[in-house]
Amino acid sequence: MTQFSKRWSDPALVATCDVMDRLFQPMTAADGIAFSIGSPAVEALPVDALREISQDVFRRDGRGIEALAYGTKMGIRDLREIIASELLAPKGVHTSADNILITAGGLETMKLLCDIFLDPGDVILVESPTFVHCVMIFQIFNAVCIPCQMDNDGLIMEDVEAKIQKYHPKMIYTVPTFQNPTGVTLSQDRRQKLAELAAKYDVIVIEDDPYRDIRFQGKDLLPIKTFDEAGKVVLANSFSKIFSPGSRLGYVVAPDDIMDKIAYAKVATNSHSSKISEVLAAEFFKRGYFPDHLKRICAIYRERCAAMMEALDAYFPEGTKHTYPDGGLFTWAELPGDIDTTELLKETMDKLHISFVAGRGFYVEGGDAGKNCMRISFGAVPPDKIYTGIKRLGDYIKTKL
Amino acid sequence: MTQFSKRWSDPALVATCDVMDRLFQPMTAADGIAFSIGSPAVEALPVDALREISQDVFRRDGRGIEALAYGTKMGIRDLREIIASELLAPKGVHTSADNILITAGGLETMKLLCDIFLDPGDVILVESPTFVHCVMIFQIFNAVCIPCQMDNDGLIMEDVEAKIQKYHPKMIYTVPTFQNPTGVTLSQDRRQKLAELAAKYDVIVIEDDPYRDIRFQGKDLLPIKTFDEAGKVVLANSFSKIFSPGSRLGYVVAPDDIMDKIAYAKVATNSHSSKISEVLAAEFFKRGYFPDHLKRICAIYRERCAAMMEALDAYFPEGTKHTYPDGGLFTWAELPGDIDTTELLKETMDKLHISFVAGRGFYVEGGDAGKNCMRISFGAVPPDKIYTGIKRLGDYIKTKL
Repeated sequence: MTQFSKRWSDPALVATCDVMDRLFQPMTAADGIAFSIGSPAVEALPVDALREISQDVFRRDGRGIEALAYGTKMGIRDLREIIASELLAPKGVHTSADNILITAGGLETMKLLCDIFLDPGDVILVESPTFVHCVMIFQIFNAVCIPCQMDNDGLIMEDVEAKIQKYHPKMIYTVPTFQNPTGVTLSQDRRQKLAELAAKYDVIVIEDDPYRDIRFQGKDLLPIKTFDEAGKVVLANSFSKIFSPGSRLGYVVAPDDIMDKIAYAKVATNSHSSKISEVLAAEFFKRGYFPDHLKRICAIYRERCAAMMEALDAYFPEGTKHTYPDGGLFTWAELPGDIDTTELLKETMDKLHISFVAGRGFYVEGGDAGKNCMRISFGAVPPDKIYTGIKRLGDYIKTKL
Repeated sequence: MTQFSKRWSDPALVATCDVMDRLFQPMTAADGIAFSIGSPAVEALPVDALREISQDVFRRDGRGIEALAYGTKMGIRDLREIIASELLAPKGVHTSADNILITAGGLETMKLLCDIFLDPGDVILVESPTFVHCVMIFQIFNAVCIPCQMDNDGLIMEDVEAKIQKYHPKMIYTVPTFQNPTGVTLSQDRRQKLAELAAKYDVIVIEDDPYRDIRFQGKDLLPIKTFDEAGKVVLANSFSKIFSPGSRLGYVVAPDDIMDKIAYAKVATNSHSSKISEVLAAEFFKRGYFPDHLKRICAIYRERCAAMMEALDAYFPEGTKHTYPDGGLFTWAELPGDIDTTELLKETMDKLHISFVAGRGFYVEGGDAGKNCMRISFGAVPPDKIYTGIKRLGDYIKTKL
């Protein structure tokens, strides 16, 4: 019988992975409506732009050799430069390309940070509820995840500080803008406070900010990183929502001492990210496709979010609470009464062919936390299906009350 | 001061990473000749094919949405199916697409296998000399690498068995075909014997076989995997040498019980590999580009290898021993006298603008092992530069004797 490592022989870990696997399963029924998936709208994928770009890129006198050859651990330079000038500087983050490394998607950054920072038993403060895929990675590294309270302005700093003092965490993990799963955004003053706490207590803050640019109303907020005078904030971002998840591109912004180690961990993971993806993405930004593309996709999500808000207010039972996101792909609903969304999901999948993600999975505290909650994605579902699906779902929930 | 994990606070590990970083530095001088790099020939990169393919792929009625959207942890199905039918079955490896996972390059497989198999202090048997990038990964996982003796037919099985009995290793790591760094190939009977030893002693064999298809003379040998009746051999391969390193695509073939865990480790690393790369690669194989492409690139490497053999025999000092590879990208030379190639390299980089990789780095035993050896790549250097470069290098070495 094959012997695995102690970690991967642990039935609890394997069970967690199994749960994760099922949690985000797509709806396969032909008439199904998937409010479960966190994917961008298919209409938001820049297919035509990439056909145009690829015609020039895949030439020997273009960037064909570069795209197909080995690269460097940091990623191609012009992509990192345009990230600095076009995606970071306008948000107030002023950094050199040398402090940006291209990852194979946003999640890989979490893996690399765990590699370099975590010893077994180390504590990570996470949001309650939090993004479960990252928690799975933290658990694989034998980290102890401690949940911190949130309200409609994101993490509550008094609770964060109390838990820093009590648990001495190595890291604080937050999705500050249009959070996954709730859609909630951390307020400006709390962003500043979180950077100050990181400095005061020498804790690393992972600012995971993939939804930031998908803002369709409200005022842009400064990233936590802009308040980072002590070099304790690592900014993680992704091209999945603003360009293409299939490109598997993300980036991490870190101070020199941290970046040196991230870079080595990247080499030891997979040498570097896909050069084909990197060159196509670099050309997408350098040729100026991005500003119009972003306007177009924000309009798509604005319309879908509005449809979702209207449908939830109209069709979900009285007493339902849900968030009103200013951006991103998700809303979060809390049902009235004694409904268990984990049970509900089985029935709606089976009878209505409608999926969402049950709330429990997003709470590291376990027990009944999130029992009556659900993450509802509007990003990948067209408005007419949002109305139809939410009406059917709401009607069904009402029969349970 | 930022606290890293115990592992990444170890100066020895950081030193290893620094050495690795410098080991494979490209020649940047304009007149430089890099016998150091293990890259494919730029002439072997299928630039034109990818321009044609990308025109059809990046369409909404083509595979544009698929290429740009999220995928599944295993990788796209048709790529895995064509790997099974076109790359594995003709070599005698009969497997289902369910036992193949697409990785972000060959090296990532080593990382995933370390994730699921290794506890700190576990032993891995490696070749002497061996592929250093993998050893770096093994060291990050706190594995103890024990070198096994090789001759011109690869690993010596008596030594492997003795070291299995002595050290009870978790894994045996081998590059059986046109080995990196020596170019040596493990003989057929030893391949069978190694699979038998793995079964007998319950040890995992990692068969890392990225050069296998780059054969330009001699008879094809069966992969170790074909002798694996006990499910102890994990086959790792890469598209870097036969398609494009920039695509960052590789694949791993493993029995069900191992594959289940590899797949979860992959999710926890970066969800899945680049879908853009996967779809382009799948179309490259499905449209039938591969057979002619392979013939063409083998012809390139055959010519370069022949030039290298001729040049070494003509220009290197008497008493030099080197391998005569039947395929791949490397040869390995052992210099006469008391020459230290680590010192030599500094001088040839500086004075001749010629690089190679000094032998020492490939020996986990340390000390003076490989002191007078060098890995010389012929894959990325055109024949005329091979003659010029090897003559200049040989002449310089002669002045040292």
